Amino acid sequence: MEERIRLLITCTDRPGIVAAVSNFLFERGANIVDAEQHSTGDRFFLRVEAELEQDPSVEFGELAQRFEMDWRLARSNPEKRVAILVSRYDHCLLDLLWRFEQREFEGTPAMVISNHPELAERVASHGLAFHHVSSEDKPAAEERFLELLADVDLVVLARYMQILSADFLERLTAPAINIHHSFLPAFAGANAYDRALERGVKVIGATSHYVTAELDEGPIIEQDVARVSHRDSRADLVRIGRDIERLVLARAVKWHLEDRVLVDGVRTVVFR
Amino acid sequence: MEERIRLLITCTDRPGIVAAVSNFLFERGANIVDAEQHSTGDRFFLRVEAELEQDPSVEFGELAQRFEMDWRLARSNPEKRVAILVSRYDHCLLDLLWRFEQREFEGTPAMVISNHPELAERVASHGLAFHHVSSEDKPAAEERFLELLADVDLVVLARYMQILSADFLERLTAPAINIHHSFLPAFAGANAYDRALERGVKVIGATSHYVTAELDEGPIIEQDVARVSHRDSRADLVRIGRDIERLVLARAVKWHLEDRVLVDGVRTVVFR
Amino acid sequence: MEERIRLLITCTDRPGIVAAVSNFLFERGANIVDAEQHSTGDRFFLRVEAELEQDPSVEFGELAQRFEMDWRLARSNPEKRVAILVSRYDHCLLDLLWRFEQREFEGTPAMVISNHPELAERVASHGLAFHHVSSEDKPAAEERFLELLADVDLVVLARYMQILSADFLERLTAPAINIHHSFLPAFAGANAYDRALERGVKVIGATSHYVTAELDEGPIIEQDVARVSHRDSRADLVRIGRDIERLVLARAVKWHLEDRVLVDGVRTVVFR
Amino acid sequence: MEERIRLLITCTDRPGIVAAVSNFLFERGANIVDAEQHSTGDRFFLRVEAELEQDPSVEFGELAQRFEMDWRLARSNPEKRVAILVSRYDHCLLDLLWRFEQREFEGTPAMVISNHPELAERVASHGLAFHHVSSEDKPAAEERFLELLADVDLVVLARYMQILSADFLERLTAPAINIHHSFLPAFAGANAYDRALERGVKVIGATSHYVTAELDEGPIIEQDVARVSHRDSRADLVRIGRDIERLVLARAVKWHLEDRVLVDGVRTVVFR
Repeated sequence: MEERIRLLITCTDRPGIVAAVSNFLFERGANIVDAEQHSTGDRFFLRVEAELEQDPSVEFGELAQRFEMDWRLARSNPEKRVAILVSRYDHCLLDLLWRFEQREFEGTPAMVISNHPELAERVASHGLAFHHVSSEDKPAAEERFLELLADVDLVVLARYMQILSADFLERLTAPAINIHHSFLPAFAGANAYDRALERGVKVIGATSHYVTAELDEGPIIEQDVARVSHRDSRADLVRIGRDIERLVLARAVKWHLEDRVLVDGVRTVVFR
Repeated sequence: MEERIRLLITCTDRPGIVAAVSNFLFERGANIVDAEQHSTGDRFFLRVEAELEQDPSVEFGELAQRFEMDWRLARSNPEKRVAILVSRYDHCLLDLLWRFEQREFEGTPAMVISNHPELAERVASHGLAFHHVSSEDKPAAEERFLELLADVDLVVLARYMQILSADFLERLTAPAINIHHSFLPAFAGANAYDRALERGVKVIGATSHYVTAELDEGPIIEQDVARVSHRDSRADLVRIGRDIERLVLARAVKWHLEDRVLVDGVRTVVFR
Repeated sequence: MEERIRLLITCTDRPGIVAAVSNFLFERGANIVDAEQHSTGDRFFLRVEAELEQDPSVEFGELAQRFEMDWRLARSNPEKRVAILVSRYDHCLLDLLWRFEQREFEGTPAMVISNHPELAERVASHGLAFHHVSSEDKPAAEERFLELLADVDLVVLARYMQILSADFLERLTAPAINIHHSFLPAFAGANAYDRALERGVKVIGATSHYVTAELDEGPIIEQDVARVSHRDSRADLVRIGRDIERLVLARAVKWHLEDRVLVDGVRTVVFR
Repeated sequence: MEERIRLLITCTDRPGIVAAVSNFLFERGANIVDAEQHSTGDRFFLRVEAELEQDPSVEFGELAQRFEMDWRLARSNPEKRVAILVSRYDHCLLDLLWRFEQREFEGTPAMVISNHPELAERVASHGLAFHHVSSEDKPAAEERFLELLADVDLVVLARYMQILSADFLERLTAPAINIHHSFLPAFAGANAYDRALERGVKVIGATSHYVTAELDEGPIIEQDVARVSHRDSRADLVRIGRDIERLVLARAVKWHLEDRVLVDGVRTVVFR
């Protein structure tokens, strides 16, 4: 029984890495389906997708040690559990759920958590668990989150409007992806559309990024924009922005679940 | 002999403005070729393009007073004098000169001023006056600028890398348009591409705006962007950015010369 | 009680139209909220949005006759009845329903008609009437359509995969908007994504247009595109295309319902 | 003395290709700088950029035979000779010349050939050979072309408005890239902007492709588009189109010169 694996490698750049890895895989009868690499001069990044009969993890550990690699063996797995955190806006949530149903993502929605009760029924109609966790007592809320999220593979903040504490993020075992409603670094923080309107920009955007303790400073996975004009009111910006937010978040979630995103400090390498 | 005029009006919004203006023009035998209006609720903006036999300025002054209008009567005039300030990068300069030759702009290049001598020959080959004004003694340079620019209709900063003083801008009689190499408000100030690279953005951009005393804070006329990825080096960003800068600056200059841009505080209304 | 009206006018271009219309409105105490005009040289197009106390239709008829205008008085009306025709793909349908719920559109979904039964439950969950009309007996199906659609203001073909007969379209009283999965005129007809893949295009698109008896030849309301590459399989094109189709159709429906689209032969004038 | 080579491989897809190639290179002390691969299932495409001390061509021939590879060893070479064919429009020509001066391209302009004399002086001012070859006697013109182009590495048709014969193309030793002023396959052939205007499209585009005997049917390298509206006249389409044509042609020429484009039947694989 062949299995499709993904080998993700980051290390100091030096000659022979590609040859060593491809040789290693070839000797084990692997068929390399896709491979992409990137070098910044200092750092080397590799993503190899291959069909393989046996798990090569143990032996690969030795090779990895020789090259001092950070590495990870990932599997294409439609069962990856994705938790979605949301506040009141439903556009990103509903779009993600629809894409899960279309099988656009390598994963399964595990639950929806909200600090507001309004979306309970909508979520239930998709046959999904909905957890209302009030954000009034933030430490308590974050403890509850940690219980709920103990077993998930990815947390998606789909316009979740509360700031998560550094302590919580440190204890969270899964990576978290946020969607911010501006083209960062412009308009970081709250009220991005109000500030875009006030400044009179001719382009608005959205940014999906990994969540870190510093607000809106995490590694950017994807960004996109739309043109606006003086004719567009705040309500227009919000409406146009919803469409960009949905698309940008969906791409980031898709690429993450397909193990296409490698973090390079405050930046990302996205092998598309 | 019919002449094409443009009537540009800004005033507090109230009923009857359009009727009064179009009536005024109709009674004088004008043919309204184009008209665009915009209301923010408080403020009203109007641009009317019309063919007219006589200059209606004196009489229109009375109507304007009644509505407490800020107004301006502009003419389609291919002789408008445009001065271009430039430092070492030539891409915006050469692109503007080419567009003048293609008659994309309602205007004529009047001179090129640079704080570096390198582009003298290139400019001369276009049959244009070139003035080298060293930026070492900034007050002296700005005095020289004011002499040179006394008689121009528009000043274009085509990647001019020096900051102009508030005093100079106050004494400058012509409006000035700058091109900034980022999508403002992101990466205002110097080294925009270095900072874009460092932040790991997936989109870079350019912004053309009217120059005000506050650096990179003037009313935005136009912005555009291009996608980049982890593969793009600083040199790539600069190269890709050049193409956006050229386009964005050219659009702003074109629209300004066609009297399509009305300033609304820190924003613009662009009637395209 | 003030009411907001929209006056839509098409006529041979000649002097005095704007003055006559704005004067007519001003004399009746109207407040012109927005006005846009367009002239092709021969033909003149005008859209005026105004607040008015009385219905000016009867009197305006006289003015219209003088200028030989095609005209229409429309009202901003959230009750406009919109019927959606769909086959098996649900992405456009669900997106439209979500936008109706978000109140993005001036209108109300009246019913969903499909030549397949699969989407019945989904539509019912939105509290909407669902009619399954088999396309096997096409004349019978079209008769049934005419009964169902007798009272609607707009028909939206949201990836409805059957060709409607010229006879049916002539008898249909409401305008119909279609979404085609290519940037027309490229890849008109069936299997647009297969043909895009085969041709190796680097950009795919979608087109929304009014339905006419000639397949995919109706006046285009909106188009948009997305980049693709050799890496994208047919499934990728379909997935990326879904997102463009949704957006392009939504814009066309929104603009039509706001009376922003005037037909100019095989083209449209879209006052946005 | 290390040299940077590019190995370009196309063959039937089967296991072991990547391992064999990277092993081959590693054993010769090569440092793989970049590698990209693509598989369509049937066909396999590989581009490897590496630093190497010795020319590996002879030995690689054996490996290539084993895998029945179409292959090519290319070198990063700023001396590649590029001939530009042009008619009357100068925008693509001048843009290419400027990019050569900016060192955006791996190559050198070798000559400009035109069927019109108008651009002679402009080309001379760049220190370049200009050949006026009248297109009145087409067979004679093509004979003259073959003499002039005997020694060039790439021919760029920068809005050259004559159709080249199949016989000529067969005898031409260098590849030829054309820029077409529409998003193919829409508006193939002449008068693309007139037809775009007539059809009322909301998006116009440009396409760069390899020239083949079938007009506008060659493998597409790059495409891009711009939005237009009912306000845009034919002159506007031409002006907006010029900017897209320049960009799209420049990208295709750049990628070709960097050996990033592999032909896959009527399509291309572009490793960017």
